[in-house]
Amino acid sequence: MNSCRMIVCFKFVFLMYLNSVTSRLADSEILEDKDFWYSNARSEVEKSLQNKWNTGQAKNVIMFVGDGMGINTITASRIYKEGEFGKLSFEHFPHVGLMKTYCVDKQVPDSASTATALFCGVKSNMHTAGVDARVKTEDCEASLSSESKVDSVIEWAQRAGKHTGFVTTTRITHATPSALYSHSASRKWECDDRLPALAMNQCKDIARQLVEDEPGKNIRVIMGGGRQCMITNSSFSPRDPEDEWSCKRRDGKDLVQEWALDKTRRGYSYKYVTHTEELDMLNVDKTDFLLGIFANGHTKMEHDRDKSPTGTPSLEQMTSTALQLLMKSKAGFLLVVEGGLIDYAHHRGKARRALDETLSFDLAIERTMALLEERGLLDETLVLVTADHDHGLSMSGYPNRGNEIYGIAMPSRIDNVPFTTLTYATGSKDNYKYFRYGSGINREDPSKADFASFDYNQQAGILNNEVAHGGGDVPVYATGPMAHLFHGVHEQNYVAFAVAYAAKIGPYSNACIKSSSLLFILSVAISLLVFQKRFVFS
Amino acid sequence: MNSCRMIVCFKFVFLMYLNSVTSRLADSEILEDKDFWYSNARSEVEKSLQNKWNTGQAKNVIMFVGDGMGINTITASRIYKEGEFGKLSFEHFPHVGLMKTYCVDKQVPDSASTATALFCGVKSNMHTAGVDARVKTEDCEASLSSESKVDSVIEWAQRAGKHTGFVTTTRITHATPSALYSHSASRKWECDDRLPALAMNQCKDIARQLVEDEPGKNIRVIMGGGRQCMITNSSFSPRDPEDEWSCKRRDGKDLVQEWALDKTRRGYSYKYVTHTEELDMLNVDKTDFLLGIFANGHTKMEHDRDKSPTGTPSLEQMTSTALQLLMKSKAGFLLVVEGGLIDYAHHRGKARRALDETLSFDLAIERTMALLEERGLLDETLVLVTADHDHGLSMSGYPNRGNEIYGIAMPSRIDNVPFTTLTYATGSKDNYKYFRYGSGINREDPSKADFASFDYNQQAGILNNEVAHGGGDVPVYATGPMAHLFHGVHEQNYVAFAVAYAAKIGPYSNACIKSSSLLFILSVAISLLVFQKRFVFS
Repeated sequence: MNSCRMIVCFKFVFLMYLNSVTSRLADSEILEDKDFWYSNARSEVEKSLQNKWNTGQAKNVIMFVGDGMGINTITASRIYKEGEFGKLSFEHFPHVGLMKTYCVDKQVPDSASTATALFCGVKSNMHTAGVDARVKTEDCEASLSSESKVDSVIEWAQRAGKHTGFVTTTRITHATPSALYSHSASRKWECDDRLPALAMNQCKDIARQLVEDEPGKNIRVIMGGGRQCMITNSSFSPRDPEDEWSCKRRDGKDLVQEWALDKTRRGYSYKYVTHTEELDMLNVDKTDFLLGIFANGHTKMEHDRDKSPTGTPSLEQMTSTALQLLMKSKAGFLLVVEGGLIDYAHHRGKARRALDETLSFDLAIERTMALLEERGLLDETLVLVTADHDHGLSMSGYPNRGNEIYGIAMPSRIDNVPFTTLTYATGSKDNYKYFRYGSGINREDPSKADFASFDYNQQAGILNNEVAHGGGDVPVYATGPMAHLFHGVHEQNYVAFAVAYAAKIGPYSNACIKSSSLLFILSVAISLLVFQKRFVFS
Repeated sequence: MNSCRMIVCFKFVFLMYLNSVTSRLADSEILEDKDFWYSNARSEVEKSLQNKWNTGQAKNVIMFVGDGMGINTITASRIYKEGEFGKLSFEHFPHVGLMKTYCVDKQVPDSASTATALFCGVKSNMHTAGVDARVKTEDCEASLSSESKVDSVIEWAQRAGKHTGFVTTTRITHATPSALYSHSASRKWECDDRLPALAMNQCKDIARQLVEDEPGKNIRVIMGGGRQCMITNSSFSPRDPEDEWSCKRRDGKDLVQEWALDKTRRGYSYKYVTHTEELDMLNVDKTDFLLGIFANGHTKMEHDRDKSPTGTPSLEQMTSTALQLLMKSKAGFLLVVEGGLIDYAHHRGKARRALDETLSFDLAIERTMALLEERGLLDETLVLVTADHDHGLSMSGYPNRGNEIYGIAMPSRIDNVPFTTLTYATGSKDNYKYFRYGSGINREDPSKADFASFDYNQQAGILNNEVAHGGGDVPVYATGPMAHLFHGVHEQNYVAFAVAYAAKIGPYSNACIKSSSLLFILSVAISLLVFQKRFVFS
């Protein structure tokens, strides 16, 4: 038995070596024959057999959300990174589940409703955040009822004494993060300027909720863009395409100052940073609270990012600083990291940018895993990587192995006009490329355009204002305590509950068990009533 | 502790009841508020916590392959079946993995190469089956080398004394099944008529390999279409659109007769059936071998299937008879079931048919699980459901909950022309719907067409001869012994090895361990040589 194990062990080491050799060589230089695939499959089986469930409690939780990072984006980004044979960092995680992303009123959801599912364990209506389905989109009054407000994993973690944080490449008040700390009938209400007149006196904008209310004011680390939602008449470039979408604070408030005042009042040390050098200089040991706002709107995409000391930190840099701060917490931490511009790039029909953003997101995950290993925290940290929803990206045709993923797949077998591997279902006028030719209609030939450009718009057959989201299931990749709860097909709101179970917070904290039992009995009673009513009146 | 368990148990039963109530009611009639989603998530967590690894040996293996059934097809089919909240039968399986489908020479593969990965554990070149990458497409001579031939799970199972079978809605000689029993440099060589003159005297067509060679001649159950590949000048309707694609045997052979003769010679009882009634009348106890050929080409799609006694059995009927026959085997069995027309419908750009075929495939799985339960075989049977590759289907826009999945998503926000939720990236002229209008180009309005028709062609932005495959990762849903080997991201050829490991066949049979060790040492040696050579000459 022992000698047998030694052989297995010997084999395993050699197969790992073989794998490292094969990944270093370009795919095309290897003869991928029977022996190659047999060895590879055998090594994958042996690795899988070493998986063990970690049934411990998750002291720490890190949730990575790639906005709009559906299966096609993941496959394409992997190829973009290191070819078909490669893997993104999170594709090494031992567990995978699939999540159904529809929201209460739409088959294909938006990011606010999916963030509410992922973070609060409740599916909601399109464009609403941190409230349940009793709140229709933009119904300020309904959102005021405490009944319909729902707590997020951040709130749950704080109640358990854990430190919390979030990092995003979007505005810190944008749809995905907003569900972590706000209760809003519209994701558009990021600042006062977007609140409708009727709602103005009743409903608080998202930025104010972040700074003034719980759990926002207790979040230890907040990093991203969105200065103009926080500071009245904050300077912004009129040419920033984000301007037309985002809020501009007009009510005279300076929420950054208010944020700082609150920390002072409560006796905490804090730091507000606005560029890379300030972040690098941060004295982690002497900082309780960190607010980093690096742009007026969303931060710039990785490709355009100002990498100078006075520029914007990468998602990897923000994440690693956030972790260093949060790791100080004795009771553990919960961190959410959003790769928010994957979605942004897709909406604008620029696939190469979406892949590039995915790799930047992947790098943040890789760095996180390395940090966790360094600190010996792998066994007590649940790490999830998922998307909030799919996008309208296709990957099709029969391109050759090793072809650039943003390249030409093949010529049409009818009109011979080449098409790219990546295309969109819908897109803006920049993606909709048809022209009249003779008595017919032709499609533009992408091989005659600069299809490798980061700003190339892949073709889309349906003219729309932008690329619309996709509705297909999204994967969750998981590692750490109770990561095996991600194993099959679930509703997306399951994610928050699985996290809560793993970390024994929120609905699974000891304090909650009694009240949740009551809630449960209540819900059964209500369901029975509904059920009866239906059959009596039908 | 016990009372605590009782409470959990009580809760679980009630939540299941609640779930059954809620799935019976139409989604729209339920208030999907906080309590609803909390209860549902809690019940999903409790169910997940009951998962246990089945580390036993798989006496039986059933592999379901939905051809072209990628994530979007699965999500859309689920909604088509019973709304967003529902599940396909296999979505209840406790384990899920994701497979990378590229083949050796293409980023987006075809069905022959992916079948070779799934069934033989080896990725191959596009359009080749049962051979490794040393065989280029259509290279007859290379395919003759015993070195490059690869055995399938059917061969492995037979060597372990298990009975084997396959059932498909395509021709029994078509790409997917062909990798189970043949070694062919081209999937097109289904019968003699398609073999090029040069190959004619050297290479044997796929149909002959099925009947004359091992493991084909030992397969106990074979069902599907494709009579014209088996019997010379078999009658076929000239209007059958399949005719132009498929082979017609011309060499004078009647392979059905040869099949029967072989069984007689070897002292087996057998039955050849050609329609539903004959299948129904089959005396399972008195039949060792069953050949069912129900069509000249592929069988008809479920929607058009002749459901009369003299018509074609459904995939469910074929599967359940196959199981009854194979369950007689004392050493267990291996069955492959292909839902082959999902892909066929997608290629023709008819999404509703693809969803309908997926539901017919789903029904075969549901019936299988019921049969396994009846016979007490659930614990010793590994059941997998997967796709060989993705397809060019998109599901996008923001349709309302409860909208027909084949319906209109929304109007374009630019030109107001509605578009359907389901569209294709590429498609034939029937999917490419643009017309000249004034000085511009308009897209046809699907709301003015019969978009609910099974023959409606969803729009595609790229004109091609047909809808091209997709390259995104495909899921494997698994249950039974060692089903937890499907847990993360793997190369697609891993599937055959995981099956082999679970069933202790092929590379993991005891007999194989010695030879595989040799093979392993050999492969390491070769890799080292390749590695050295590269660094010496570079």
